[in-house]
Amino acid sequence: MKENNSNILRLRRLGIDTHTEHIIFMRADSPICRSEGFTANTRVAVNYGGRSITATLNVITSGLIGDGEAALSEEAFAKLNVQEGDLITVTHLQPILSFSEVRAKMFGKKLNDTVIQRIISDITRGLYSKIEIAAFVTVCSGDNLALDEVIYLTKAMINSGSRLEWDEPMIVDKHCVGGLPGNRTTPIVVPIVAAAGLLIPKTSSRAITSPAGTADVIETMTPVNLGLEQIKHVVRQEGGCMAWGGAVKLSPVDDVIISVEKALDVDSAGQMIASVLSKKAAAGSTHVVIDIPVGDTAKVRSKEEAFLLEYYLRAVGLSIGMGVEVMITDGSQPVGRGIGPALEAIDVLSVLRNEPDAPEDLKSRSVQLAGLMLEKAGAAPDGKGAARALEILESGQALDKFYRICEAQGGFKEPVTAGLRHDVLAMTNGVVRSVDNRKLAKVGKLAGAPKSPGAGIYFNAPIGKHIQKGDTLFTIYAASQGELNYALTYLHGSSHIVELAAI
Amino acid sequence: MKENNSNILRLRRLGIDTHTEHIIFMRADSPICRSEGFTANTRVAVNYGGRSITATLNVITSGLIGDGEAALSEEAFAKLNVQEGDLITVTHLQPILSFSEVRAKMFGKKLNDTVIQRIISDITRGLYSKIEIAAFVTVCSGDNLALDEVIYLTKAMINSGSRLEWDEPMIVDKHCVGGLPGNRTTPIVVPIVAAAGLLIPKTSSRAITSPAGTADVIETMTPVNLGLEQIKHVVRQEGGCMAWGGAVKLSPVDDVIISVEKALDVDSAGQMIASVLSKKAAAGSTHVVIDIPVGDTAKVRSKEEAFLLEYYLRAVGLSIGMGVEVMITDGSQPVGRGIGPALEAIDVLSVLRNEPDAPEDLKSRSVQLAGLMLEKAGAAPDGKGAARALEILESGQALDKFYRICEAQGGFKEPVTAGLRHDVLAMTNGVVRSVDNRKLAKVGKLAGAPKSPGAGIYFNAPIGKHIQKGDTLFTIYAASQGELNYALTYLHGSSHIVELAAI
Repeated sequence: MKENNSNILRLRRLGIDTHTEHIIFMRADSPICRSEGFTANTRVAVNYGGRSITATLNVITSGLIGDGEAALSEEAFAKLNVQEGDLITVTHLQPILSFSEVRAKMFGKKLNDTVIQRIISDITRGLYSKIEIAAFVTVCSGDNLALDEVIYLTKAMINSGSRLEWDEPMIVDKHCVGGLPGNRTTPIVVPIVAAAGLLIPKTSSRAITSPAGTADVIETMTPVNLGLEQIKHVVRQEGGCMAWGGAVKLSPVDDVIISVEKALDVDSAGQMIASVLSKKAAAGSTHVVIDIPVGDTAKVRSKEEAFLLEYYLRAVGLSIGMGVEVMITDGSQPVGRGIGPALEAIDVLSVLRNEPDAPEDLKSRSVQLAGLMLEKAGAAPDGKGAARALEILESGQALDKFYRICEAQGGFKEPVTAGLRHDVLAMTNGVVRSVDNRKLAKVGKLAGAPKSPGAGIYFNAPIGKHIQKGDTLFTIYAASQGELNYALTYLHGSSHIVELAAI
Repeated sequence: MKENNSNILRLRRLGIDTHTEHIIFMRADSPICRSEGFTANTRVAVNYGGRSITATLNVITSGLIGDGEAALSEEAFAKLNVQEGDLITVTHLQPILSFSEVRAKMFGKKLNDTVIQRIISDITRGLYSKIEIAAFVTVCSGDNLALDEVIYLTKAMINSGSRLEWDEPMIVDKHCVGGLPGNRTTPIVVPIVAAAGLLIPKTSSRAITSPAGTADVIETMTPVNLGLEQIKHVVRQEGGCMAWGGAVKLSPVDDVIISVEKALDVDSAGQMIASVLSKKAAAGSTHVVIDIPVGDTAKVRSKEEAFLLEYYLRAVGLSIGMGVEVMITDGSQPVGRGIGPALEAIDVLSVLRNEPDAPEDLKSRSVQLAGLMLEKAGAAPDGKGAARALEILESGQALDKFYRICEAQGGFKEPVTAGLRHDVLAMTNGVVRSVDNRKLAKVGKLAGAPKSPGAGIYFNAPIGKHIQKGDTLFTIYAASQGELNYALTYLHGSSHIVELAAI
């Protein structure tokens, strides 16, 4: 049958960023709009030059685009690799067969190896809409995934992206389950471990809902947007790197799933494990140490939960040939004093530089983690890893290695904090009893971190500290008055970020 | 604290319809964008004149809107009741507390009365985004809702909208679980039942993903967009009406939830029951007959499933003081010959007019349903309802009542079919063995139904019919060549819409 030309449309670029979900904007009077109808999830295939993406329909009821024109969201332009003025072909989308298995899981049917591969492959290809991913995330949430399903999911996610290959038998890595502001051990652990002669091709994420991801922090000191070849070059030369994982697409599907999980604020143990271990496996890691901070306002809230996570992490690691060690740590309050990219980087540098007022908690946690990695990789005898790590740190070898890695990544620069500051003062005397990590992170985020890398919080009220009325509990840093006010509005509406007990 | 004026923005109207989810378009360089960040689900409160809505953020990276401006999606303009040029205030959105109960349900915690009330109230207020509704739909899907949860959900949905009050002890109603093209008994049943002296204030829905909803069919013959007062007037005068339910907002939250369910193609028994019975209760109905067609390509695929639905429907009905009767019917093929608003209306009229070639299946089904309603309402002895209904139909009283209801609603007109036609011919001889309702409906939809009310399918190949090679299996009607071609493209890619067995 001859293709009807009413589905060939000329592209307009409106400059609308709709985040990860591709949107096509079509006129209400176009034949395709009329025949597809318009629902909460009307989707079509958009084709150009042999490439095809799936896009959700938004309808233009004004003259914003002309007859015979269509527009795409920004990420769709990039994904389809098109320009304004190109002629796209819009066609009817066949049903996504793998989603019927998500529906079956709603009815309690287990997901097998093949099915999970197909679901993950379809999500990777962009066939699932946000609400379909939300349904997938929901059926995988809670304790709805059995161990074998987590293993299948991990393997499917490893297969969804590219993979780094190393000609070494031992590649070490670390990960923190997160939820703890300021817990920025990576830029300290990587140079210690690399200085000890191990290979650590570390990739980190950017913040999604927090005021800083590790990649955001490191970026205030050195470029992190490295390609696969650059990562290999830096690691071969220095033994370690500190790169942004997103640039190398080690597990691209993970970013898509995580964005919906974060939006729903759903912590799914199974998906978290698959997410972490698939990225480590794709990076070629053979030995991984996982930091699980436990605290009332951390991601993991009880030791029991941490023990269960440890069991899953080790069992899945075993099934994919990866040695996994877990370190359960204190998650009751922020680590160090800075929250936000530059402020955390300053803490990191003060530890690496052995400054007298360097935050002891960040230093000790980094040394413990690095020590465990040295032991597991055979670079220190059992029980002696932390001492060896401390020696590397205090001798200045770690700082030297840190600078060398930065140079290899494109050069080192000092982090710079934002210009506007606002002190939050204690209203009474007392001893700090508890800190709400989540609210504190929220204030830092609303103040502009990580988009303004110098924004965030300098935290001055650790648990147990004696506070006098009028003392500064923490200082908010912001790059603009608007952002500072936005954070203050939230702060004034919240209570108990820092709780004091009467002395 | 003084409000910072960077969150006061001047409205631009771009004419972008984003369906039910409200979208706010803000410049990437606005302080609010910077401090909220941009995720798959960044949401803010948009305030004007004491009213407030929740909107999801899309970011403008071009000059489409100027500094200090923002745009809203079309439905958001309507909901907030604003005009281009108005000054809106954008503020940070507090977390939606009821969603934490949806998360708890993911972990297996049951939903109680209070919790479901809060969730439904928050969805009604527009606080949930599409992906949050998708998560709620998913946790309620399959057999995840116990009977008491379905009862709570039904009651919460009744409370979410307005409610019709009648000074009569007996208000009858009918509903069909759906999934069967052409099963348009309502415009036949309503006049029969009303002519028998019963009160039947019938509201129907428009199509969401099918080629015609009952309201779409009736609209080709008489106006259906009636307000509450008009409905009361028509019913008081004629004993029955045939109105569109969406206009009177009897259970507004239902439309929002259904749009996401349809998008996910998830049939949740619990939610379907709550949806149907809440709308009936809000319409003031006391006695309801439910038609459940069973067939391989109908919504309900087995008798067992139908029996379970019947149990739930009757038990929930009991808990809200409503008498519910179920009629399980044949769902193996379309009813009548027309699929699409005008084509189905023509079938309806031929039955009401007692034309010799009126579709017997549509007539008999309508008579059975009306008969059961007469019996349950005490207007006919048990076992004699169908005979009485047939008498009302064949005597012309039903046609007379139909015209009178149409006159009361604004006048009667003859339905008009679309101008372009395409016959789909049999490729071989044979006897029709099965019909794929879903694919047939899809062809009708792609041909333009219901947006083009005259578009759709005239079906000519019921099960058991002897077909010669070259006979017309069905005819596609379309209003434009583009829509016809779109349907034909799908048709050529599909197989087995009508399956023939060798004679």
